[in-house]
Amino acid sequence: MPKLVDHEERRNHIAEATWRVILNQGMKGATVRNIAREAGLSLGALRHYFSTQDELLVFAMKLVKDRATERIQQIAMSDLPPKDKILNIMLELVPLDENKMAEMEVWFAFTFYTRHKNDVLDAQHDGIYAGMKKLIDYMDHHHMLRNNLDKEIETEKLYALIDGIAIHALLEPHRVNKERIKAVLSQHLDSICAEG
Amino acid sequence: MPKLVDHEERRNHIAEATWRVILNQGMKGATVRNIAREAGLSLGALRHYFSTQDELLVFAMKLVKDRATERIQQIAMSDLPPKDKILNIMLELVPLDENKMAEMEVWFAFTFYTRHKNDVLDAQHDGIYAGMKKLIDYMDHHHMLRNNLDKEIETEKLYALIDGIAIHALLEPHRVNKERIKAVLSQHLDSICAEG
Repeated sequence: MPKLVDHEERRNHIAEATWRVILNQGMKGATVRNIAREAGLSLGALRHYFSTQDELLVFAMKLVKDRATERIQQIAMSDLPPKDKILNIMLELVPLDENKMAEMEVWFAFTFYTRHKNDVLDAQHDGIYAGMKKLIDYMDHHHMLRNNLDKEIETEKLYALIDGIAIHALLEPHRVNKERIKAVLSQHLDSICAEG
Repeated sequence: MPKLVDHEERRNHIAEATWRVILNQGMKGATVRNIAREAGLSLGALRHYFSTQDELLVFAMKLVKDRATERIQQIAMSDLPPKDKILNIMLELVPLDENKMAEMEVWFAFTFYTRHKNDVLDAQHDGIYAGMKKLIDYMDHHHMLRNNLDKEIETEKLYALIDGIAIHALLEPHRVNKERIKAVLSQHLDSICAEG
């Protein structure tokens, strides 16, 4: 009797192999051949799940995004006080551990890779700007923001700050470590929140 | 009589061809062969100036950095009032025009490319963090900063904000346009400056 393999699970397994390959060898190494080897599959078996390299890369990216979204929704629905909720969501978007470091690296590699491939899905709209807008609106709704803040500018600024510190955490992990990231993000949160 | 060619000028010409190739084809296309073609040189002639691809890439990157440093020094030595000086230096570090857009793109591509090549020069220390520190120190020295600011955190924050907005200007140029970038950076400057 043939072994039953969950299709979705197998696709996730391949996506994870894809991340490891990108992480170790960069986007250049993310060939179907290398990914099949890393996943312990034959080329034919891999092609059964993904017929092109681009299809595979898009799936691997989407998995990163779905997992992050899931983590953020959990925080949003938790019982934390509003300000802690905001800070924790912000912290979800920066690489504080090895796993998220890997996700972020793949995201950056993929984003720059697809810039020169017009036929691939548009990876640039990862929904983080929209997420930042929601955070600022939430804070506004809960009367947390300082008076006279320009919400649009604050949204853009928060988005830049988070992606900037994320990229620095990847490139200069010694200086931009967990404590540093937390200090910068809480300081920023305090700076836009009304006092008391 | 053989044509005299200025060695440095020829190297700069090749570096600029390198940028164009990276810009159009990504890091993947930045082969010595493609760069020679773009520069209108034979492979042999190109190898006369740069014996390896890495040597060429490192030179092209250094040229970006040197040109940015030069522009910043000119602003630093100008007669502008301190706050305008700071804002103008910040604006030099983000892609406000086509040329700087290209420089930034090459910088990002190169930075991620070299992450997986341990033998290549460390591109990650591009001196911008040190530059941010100087800006904050300058502001402190001129009594421009608000009281009770943590200078180290403000340095890290400014650095993240500038690189974050730079990357967004590359990826989402319609929303993150010149006006938007200026608005975010002046707002940030105002937010750390003492009033009046």
